[in-house]
Amino acid sequence: MSAPETSPRITVAEAGRYAGQRVEIPGWLYNLRRSGKIAFPLVRDGTGIIQGVAVKSQLPEELFETIKNLTQESSIVVTGKVRAEARAPGGYELDVEDLQVVSRVPEGDPYPITPKEHGIEFLMDHRHLWLRSRRQHAILRVRHEVIRAVRDYLDGHGYTLVDTPIFTPAACEGTTSLFEVSYFDDEKVYLTQSGQLYNEATAMAFGKVYCFGPTFRAERSKTRRHLTEFWMVEPEMAYATLEDVKQLAEELVCFVVGRVLENRRAELAVLERDVSKLEAIQAPFPRISYDQAVENLQRKGSEIAWGGDFGGADETLLSEDHDRPVMVDRYPTQVKAFYMQPDPERPEVALGVDVLAPEGYGEIIGGGQRIHDLDLLLKRIEEHGLPREAFNWYIDLRKFGAVPHGGFGMGIERVVAWLCGLEHVRETIAFPRMLYRTRP
Amino acid sequence: MSAPETSPRITVAEAGRYAGQRVEIPGWLYNLRRSGKIAFPLVRDGTGIIQGVAVKSQLPEELFETIKNLTQESSIVVTGKVRAEARAPGGYELDVEDLQVVSRVPEGDPYPITPKEHGIEFLMDHRHLWLRSRRQHAILRVRHEVIRAVRDYLDGHGYTLVDTPIFTPAACEGTTSLFEVSYFDDEKVYLTQSGQLYNEATAMAFGKVYCFGPTFRAERSKTRRHLTEFWMVEPEMAYATLEDVKQLAEELVCFVVGRVLENRRAELAVLERDVSKLEAIQAPFPRISYDQAVENLQRKGSEIAWGGDFGGADETLLSEDHDRPVMVDRYPTQVKAFYMQPDPERPEVALGVDVLAPEGYGEIIGGGQRIHDLDLLLKRIEEHGLPREAFNWYIDLRKFGAVPHGGFGMGIERVVAWLCGLEHVRETIAFPRMLYRTRP
Repeated sequence: MSAPETSPRITVAEAGRYAGQRVEIPGWLYNLRRSGKIAFPLVRDGTGIIQGVAVKSQLPEELFETIKNLTQESSIVVTGKVRAEARAPGGYELDVEDLQVVSRVPEGDPYPITPKEHGIEFLMDHRHLWLRSRRQHAILRVRHEVIRAVRDYLDGHGYTLVDTPIFTPAACEGTTSLFEVSYFDDEKVYLTQSGQLYNEATAMAFGKVYCFGPTFRAERSKTRRHLTEFWMVEPEMAYATLEDVKQLAEELVCFVVGRVLENRRAELAVLERDVSKLEAIQAPFPRISYDQAVENLQRKGSEIAWGGDFGGADETLLSEDHDRPVMVDRYPTQVKAFYMQPDPERPEVALGVDVLAPEGYGEIIGGGQRIHDLDLLLKRIEEHGLPREAFNWYIDLRKFGAVPHGGFGMGIERVVAWLCGLEHVRETIAFPRMLYRTRP
Repeated sequence: MSAPETSPRITVAEAGRYAGQRVEIPGWLYNLRRSGKIAFPLVRDGTGIIQGVAVKSQLPEELFETIKNLTQESSIVVTGKVRAEARAPGGYELDVEDLQVVSRVPEGDPYPITPKEHGIEFLMDHRHLWLRSRRQHAILRVRHEVIRAVRDYLDGHGYTLVDTPIFTPAACEGTTSLFEVSYFDDEKVYLTQSGQLYNEATAMAFGKVYCFGPTFRAERSKTRRHLTEFWMVEPEMAYATLEDVKQLAEELVCFVVGRVLENRRAELAVLERDVSKLEAIQAPFPRISYDQAVENLQRKGSEIAWGGDFGGADETLLSEDHDRPVMVDRYPTQVKAFYMQPDPERPEVALGVDVLAPEGYGEIIGGGQRIHDLDLLLKRIEEHGLPREAFNWYIDLRKFGAVPHGGFGMGIERVVAWLCGLEHVRETIAFPRMLYRTRP
């Protein structure tokens, strides 16, 4: 009673197009319920999960025994008829007619991740397998959607992708958190922390640019918001001011959230994410100054004083009054990077902006307008004790056709954590790298 | 006679939509021709180049003097009326009515890259400025198109983007060409050479996946095909054979070439690329075995013997008979990586395939089917003297639901070099990193 050779091989996601037809689905056994007379193998294939229905009285005895004794994560090719079933999660079930076992997981060495609770260290040690679980799967599909939305938005708005180098000769924001690489012949290079300085060069060539790749910070932070290796998108615009930067940030965030809501509802449901929180993300975002932010924080009991940078707790306090991201601008020049353009009317604050996600997810975007005046930049490089020689090329950008310009960096893992409603960024990337985690 | 405030600020690329209207274009002076009575400033803004026409008799004397004395790469905002002009490269010119100088490059410290010929080292030292030239600009826009096409193709064909880690604890293909990074507390990690091993894990979770990021090889190669830091896209499929891998490679290459021809004709023209060579890139690609390839090479005078790997000269010889990429499969197992699936009918050859670009551009794709049998993989790991402990997670993939699977890596810089017709890959990336080049 094997299926005719003509059964098309399909994915679970395609099942709806084959209702009433016999098909073949290659995949893995996700779970199995069974009684003496019937077995329900749940088959996953990476595009979805479908329940098979195997009835003992309708199958050869040996085949039913095989199905009944399948082990979790065994690879199988299931043949059967697709049947609409309103109660099934995907809307369809498969009446099993045949099943081939490609590779059976032995009882003696079973799949290590079972439906019971496991500790986070155990799961992280088995990350290569944990990714198969429904929840991790949903997170990484949201991540893909976020990345795709970011690229679609920028590609569709005249930005040229110009990826910046990973190996950099000098530090962008201080050397203490740099990873050092042995290059050839005892040369040392560092892993990039940001493509921004290079973006400034390419923005002068292309007008609007972005880079999008991994960045690295050797911070001894063991918080739920830090990875040593994380992905960042950094758009940069020539002939732009702080206002342009804020507008781009707002539009990009709204576009990304919209796309995830449009295409990843099922995944958000798996994650039990309250989507009403995401539906509230609409322009305009509230805009407050650093001065106002400090006042608000002090009123709420924070010990912050004017001039200090916000901690994670401060960010949470600032965002709790709003149902959408908050834009905080004009930070004290002293807490910001050397390249930040000072406010011409108030040089003690810089034309920078941070975007804080709601629900306590903290900073997802940081950026602003960069110094375009040659003399001011030279002064700042000196004040910050930076090696001028290493910045000669960056200084060139102020000698040859300088214009007001700005941009920002958006951390992908933090955006994914926020959209998915996760407590820790470690689940937002396939193989997270942290202070004490470099494997698998 | 300054322009009315209502002039819209536009890009050069948008000029066609504003024919007959007064507009404002922010940009940089690319070049300037002039006589006593008329000046033709060429304005670039990253989206294109437009010629301005400034007539002395129609402008205030001071303004005409300013225009006449503009220096290369000064930043300017030009106001004027857009006029259709069939002889202009973009189809439009701008009748200048006003011009503001944002930042003037002084005569005493002029823009270093002039229309005269410069040596390659000088240009590479000034890469941050060289990117503004028409030719470099065209190359990087083709690169963007290639990257976008690759992502669109894979996103549109059911592949999930799952980026793999840059920090890896173990070597994928031998340790001699690995860059070592000082992690925390004297730990050492290495920069990834390929995401493939991780892709195999994620393919078992998602069915079809890809990673797309920078990869690193510490090779002491000073050839026109090598960078120490380069970008690679690596798709991987579960339930797939060598034939599936070949088909995907062929379809992806055709799609990418088609997109570049569709959207980047102007850039190819700047590069003086013979597009007929690219129009010939159509499926099916010729497929030959390694055995046949060796025979062909010997007949052409190469000294290669069966069992050896092809050098660059061999690849050129192999591709010269064809106007499209050649797929060479079934290489000797001994020259290929430990994870390659042997041909069941002829175990001395592996189910791997390389795709060689035409016109001597060499290998652009390498991949194949991976070993899915647990015992064989264990044997290979031992034969290759690899530390089993480091591969435990990879071995797990053969214990828990192994299926035939395969994929490939495609090097972006080599594809861009081929499509643009470049002699050296160093121009295919914004800031190339090579044996003796880590700046700017």
